[in-house]
Amino acid sequence: MLIIMHSDASQEQIDQVILQVEANNLAAHLSRGTERTIIGAVGDGRPVNKDLFTLLPGVDRVVPISRPYKLASREFSPENTTFKLDGAVIGGPGIVIIAGPCSVESRSQTLEIAHAVREAGATALRGGAYKPRTSPYSFQGLGEQGLEILAEAREATGLPIVTEVTAPELVPMVASYADVLQVGARNMQNFALLHAVGESQHPVLLKRGMSATVEELLMAAEYILSEGNRRVILCERGIRTFETATRNTTDINAIPVLKELTHLPVLLDPSHSTGYWQYVMAVACAGIAAGADGLIVEVHTHPEQALSDGGQSLKPERFADLVTRTRAIAQAVGRSTVPGRHDLSKPVREGEKAT
Amino acid sequence: MLIIMHSDASQEQIDQVILQVEANNLAAHLSRGTERTIIGAVGDGRPVNKDLFTLLPGVDRVVPISRPYKLASREFSPENTTFKLDGAVIGGPGIVIIAGPCSVESRSQTLEIAHAVREAGATALRGGAYKPRTSPYSFQGLGEQGLEILAEAREATGLPIVTEVTAPELVPMVASYADVLQVGARNMQNFALLHAVGESQHPVLLKRGMSATVEELLMAAEYILSEGNRRVILCERGIRTFETATRNTTDINAIPVLKELTHLPVLLDPSHSTGYWQYVMAVACAGIAAGADGLIVEVHTHPEQALSDGGQSLKPERFADLVTRTRAIAQAVGRSTVPGRHDLSKPVREGEKAT
Amino acid sequence: MLIIMHSDASQEQIDQVILQVEANNLAAHLSRGTERTIIGAVGDGRPVNKDLFTLLPGVDRVVPISRPYKLASREFSPENTTFKLDGAVIGGPGIVIIAGPCSVESRSQTLEIAHAVREAGATALRGGAYKPRTSPYSFQGLGEQGLEILAEAREATGLPIVTEVTAPELVPMVASYADVLQVGARNMQNFALLHAVGESQHPVLLKRGMSATVEELLMAAEYILSEGNRRVILCERGIRTFETATRNTTDINAIPVLKELTHLPVLLDPSHSTGYWQYVMAVACAGIAAGADGLIVEVHTHPEQALSDGGQSLKPERFADLVTRTRAIAQAVGRSTVPGRHDLSKPVREGEKAT
Amino acid sequence: MLIIMHSDASQEQIDQVILQVEANNLAAHLSRGTERTIIGAVGDGRPVNKDLFTLLPGVDRVVPISRPYKLASREFSPENTTFKLDGAVIGGPGIVIIAGPCSVESRSQTLEIAHAVREAGATALRGGAYKPRTSPYSFQGLGEQGLEILAEAREATGLPIVTEVTAPELVPMVASYADVLQVGARNMQNFALLHAVGESQHPVLLKRGMSATVEELLMAAEYILSEGNRRVILCERGIRTFETATRNTTDINAIPVLKELTHLPVLLDPSHSTGYWQYVMAVACAGIAAGADGLIVEVHTHPEQALSDGGQSLKPERFADLVTRTRAIAQAVGRSTVPGRHDLSKPVREGEKAT
Repeated sequence: MLIIMHSDASQEQIDQVILQVEANNLAAHLSRGTERTIIGAVGDGRPVNKDLFTLLPGVDRVVPISRPYKLASREFSPENTTFKLDGAVIGGPGIVIIAGPCSVESRSQTLEIAHAVREAGATALRGGAYKPRTSPYSFQGLGEQGLEILAEAREATGLPIVTEVTAPELVPMVASYADVLQVGARNMQNFALLHAVGESQHPVLLKRGMSATVEELLMAAEYILSEGNRRVILCERGIRTFETATRNTTDINAIPVLKELTHLPVLLDPSHSTGYWQYVMAVACAGIAAGADGLIVEVHTHPEQALSDGGQSLKPERFADLVTRTRAIAQAVGRSTVPGRHDLSKPVREGEKAT
Repeated sequence: MLIIMHSDASQEQIDQVILQVEANNLAAHLSRGTERTIIGAVGDGRPVNKDLFTLLPGVDRVVPISRPYKLASREFSPENTTFKLDGAVIGGPGIVIIAGPCSVESRSQTLEIAHAVREAGATALRGGAYKPRTSPYSFQGLGEQGLEILAEAREATGLPIVTEVTAPELVPMVASYADVLQVGARNMQNFALLHAVGESQHPVLLKRGMSATVEELLMAAEYILSEGNRRVILCERGIRTFETATRNTTDINAIPVLKELTHLPVLLDPSHSTGYWQYVMAVACAGIAAGADGLIVEVHTHPEQALSDGGQSLKPERFADLVTRTRAIAQAVGRSTVPGRHDLSKPVREGEKAT
Repeated sequence: MLIIMHSDASQEQIDQVILQVEANNLAAHLSRGTERTIIGAVGDGRPVNKDLFTLLPGVDRVVPISRPYKLASREFSPENTTFKLDGAVIGGPGIVIIAGPCSVESRSQTLEIAHAVREAGATALRGGAYKPRTSPYSFQGLGEQGLEILAEAREATGLPIVTEVTAPELVPMVASYADVLQVGARNMQNFALLHAVGESQHPVLLKRGMSATVEELLMAAEYILSEGNRRVILCERGIRTFETATRNTTDINAIPVLKELTHLPVLLDPSHSTGYWQYVMAVACAGIAAGADGLIVEVHTHPEQALSDGGQSLKPERFADLVTRTRAIAQAVGRSTVPGRHDLSKPVREGEKAT
Repeated sequence: MLIIMHSDASQEQIDQVILQVEANNLAAHLSRGTERTIIGAVGDGRPVNKDLFTLLPGVDRVVPISRPYKLASREFSPENTTFKLDGAVIGGPGIVIIAGPCSVESRSQTLEIAHAVREAGATALRGGAYKPRTSPYSFQGLGEQGLEILAEAREATGLPIVTEVTAPELVPMVASYADVLQVGARNMQNFALLHAVGESQHPVLLKRGMSATVEELLMAAEYILSEGNRRVILCERGIRTFETATRNTTDINAIPVLKELTHLPVLLDPSHSTGYWQYVMAVACAGIAAGADGLIVEVHTHPEQALSDGGQSLKPERFADLVTRTRAIAQAVGRSTVPGRHDLSKPVREGEKAT
């Protein structure tokens, strides 16, 4: 932490800052320029309260030097984190593609879509049983009944299940059905929920909040990691900007930025990040080209009848094209041709849980 | 809902849209222009899934007409909602000023600040026992012990208590101590929490999310209102923009916009909306001038020792100036000179709960 | 400038940075922490190219210390800049209110509005002859004919004229009619235009760009000031954010921030910053309460017939209310009761130019 | 245009709106719902002033139906616009890659870089002689001397020249040297400049403003097109958002959105849209994967000595990798393997101008 004094700070003010630095068990390093004095406060890496210094007389501003997250940083773990999700490897050379409906609406709808995305080459099945909706009058999901349907779809297709959990007290129950617990964008800073999914030791797909910085996303991951749960997948899903041509603005820059800053796997959700099915293919391709470890895509066999997000859902045949095209791009950017996906040659298994 | 057809839509496509409108128990009104055909879909006011129409062939776009919230709207309740909070009236001609520390740090700190803000003219005491913090390594609040301290401060000063609740399962316990349950900005779309505070029938202070639109804030309020809990206070606390000179950007426009759209009381939090104590006075004055029903302000007797948000906390003497100046502005904009605040002439009561 | 090395930077890399610092005529101050080494590069205050250091091996990041503007800073000139605009003083204890139509549409419209705003208490008349319009098919202004009409309005009412200039080559001509040259938001970083209005030595009203930071606004002012033209007025007019309930988001925080950082007068334009006449009064009041030195407001006698911006224009009677109410607020925040406005008791003068 | 009446609008108010519609030579189509009346105003496609209706009593809001641009729309011209730039075709099946230094700093620097980018496979040479800089104290470019250097580089390498023009009066002179006139992001709504480059009939590279919507970019293009100049190239270069991890946020969504809405060629500038050379490769790949017709990339042989934007400039060897990788992606997304680039097999020509 650097404490930059005003150009007219007195020696007494400088001394007071040094006292405060040392009173907080930090070492003070004085650097006296012709215009300003700068005091470095060096500690053991634990976070220090900036306001301890900003409010002292004579202080102009305080510049933090260390990153505020640790377990999520690439410095902490230079190698990419990879883990198996059923047959697939997340974070490895191949890409993973999670696909399925926004909401679990019924048994038949879910099974139909599950089979379709499996045929098209998906790695895992997504589907929401607990739906956070802006309006109290919108469809709120089928709850545990929806989870049972997802479990049946897993048995039928062998695809592991990714589904959202929306409250801390639901975590154990949802984890008993799901292979991956999704924390949605609106809950990225629901810290009680982050603690709960951390404690569950279950794989977590953490979506970036719509106005969260990359650093805040990593701090949210740090909550989960600090509970000893290392299987965290990050997901860019678009941020809120002034542009209204699309539902959100895909922050494609975040892909290489995250790959630089963290060892955790990074996915892109081109469905939410655009909001219109017309643009999903282009942005899915962009995500893989930019280095994402995979995609999570909304697919529906009858988008015009979907109870939520139909407008951004692909039909299965378009999704099959997306799988083909993104795999071609993965190859063009030097990724493995061995996809990190469910192995279609294996017999459909009886829904055994992921490692 | 208006369904605007492409300029080259065929008669068959138009007929299909009309069938879909009628299949959803809506009345179709056809308007044929020289360039385009527009189909109005009129129902009983319940929300209709836009995607039912946007995905049909020949449809250019769908324009919703009705507002998506009802109970929160001024059309539903033209008169301002007012309710008593202990001696004070929120939403009435006087303004209310809620003040106190960001976090309850200790018994002595809280009591000292509580007395100070009471002397300065505060209406209620704020203070956090459960703190949502970006970093897992930051002070997370004292929990129930903090609530006990707040209860003691209420007994000592007679000020009602406003404190945050961060998880649905905590609501009954926090409500047993607090006069007003605060839902923080990061939890504005934590729908499980909104349900829980709605069911509690306790007064709720709902803070706008940092990237929430005014409409989304009203939808969040609708969740609480739809549980039969009518005592909801809205709070503007700054939104996230590109500007970095301040911590957030105070959306001062939101004050008159909310006063037009809703009957609920509207407060401004100039501490979070600026992030620097130097700007709190100016923005507090702006809020009252713009029509806010009151303020919620962070005050600390020793900001430089605060465990959170010290940099945006006022010292008591500055806060006293703020009370004086904002009351003068309230008068200048035609508000009552009878403040909606705790009556200092009354003897300090034994902490009886608000109505 | 502080150069922060990576935690694993080698001594050789540190030495190379020091060499580069000294090769650029800067003094190097080394500060060696337990984790990182930080090198301060101290010069004579002239800007240094950050990239000279960020790209060297072993450098983590470079933190600028000095503000990038000088003439605009309060450190350079601690006293408020004030100057006379005809009878009115801008930047002094009183507030100024500039009012008039968005566009000069005709002689009769302009004269009618000019008389109306003068009666209501305006300090100066605004009106656009050169209009930057998003669409090439919108009304683009009357050009020099509009300036002649404004000159006639000045003769008739005694109000000084504020009008926009949109291209460098137009500056001398527009300056021959106008008392204040306005640089519009879209041209805030049109540096050729900034040079031209700087050279003109004419008072300039510089509007903040819709996505410009406060610092960039001050840098734009620095362009004008560095031509020796000290009569620069800054104007907050709303920034672009995700919120669509209003046309722009008034950055009310910018008022106290600018008053702290610069000595230049600061106005607020509540018409553009909200975009709806319904909200202009509330936000105008907020601006004065927050410390703005005045307002620039769109007024039209027949808003529903205006060729531009009718929806955000006040009728004269509402504008008169605005003048009354904002003057009451000015008094409540301790400003002079002697308004910085045209003296109505003086006979209408023959349009003599401002000092 | 649809005029939506308040739910309690009177018949008299409805009649008044119809009168106003007809007085403006529009046809009125009445649609009476159970809750609201909606009036369609249908004309010949020319823009109508919305405020003519929004301000009438009883009107709730007005919804425009037609797009505000015409010549730029894909409806106007369903086929992609393509044109030759020297040997290269812009907007065709191949991709174009424009590369070079941010600023022309010297003859030797420019020639060295020009040869390097030609060797690496660039289609055209970029370089700024007139530099819009945030600070008046930064390097402002070499002016006409810089243009002469660019002309020499064209003779030496055969690469056509793309360079920025910053003021209307400079257009004829800059056009005498340049193959493509660049309008920079800060000047996207400098309408005097748009008129001038339109009149020049020279190819124009129009960069999106940092807070411009896609629609505003198309409206800016419409200014140029409406002067009869059809050779307009659009360029996404990042927008301003709350995220500070990168200099701007690449709006990758804008690529497929623009390809849908307009027939004009669309480029991506990964250098400005990220601001750090580390991320340029990933985002360049994303742009081509998303369907961009090409790239404009900053390249410098000695980035650490660059007078501007060194931090986002690639060294030639990295740029060569970028060319290789983006061409592989172009192939993966089905673009022609015949690049729209300068033909290296042809002898270096004597700088003849583009068609």
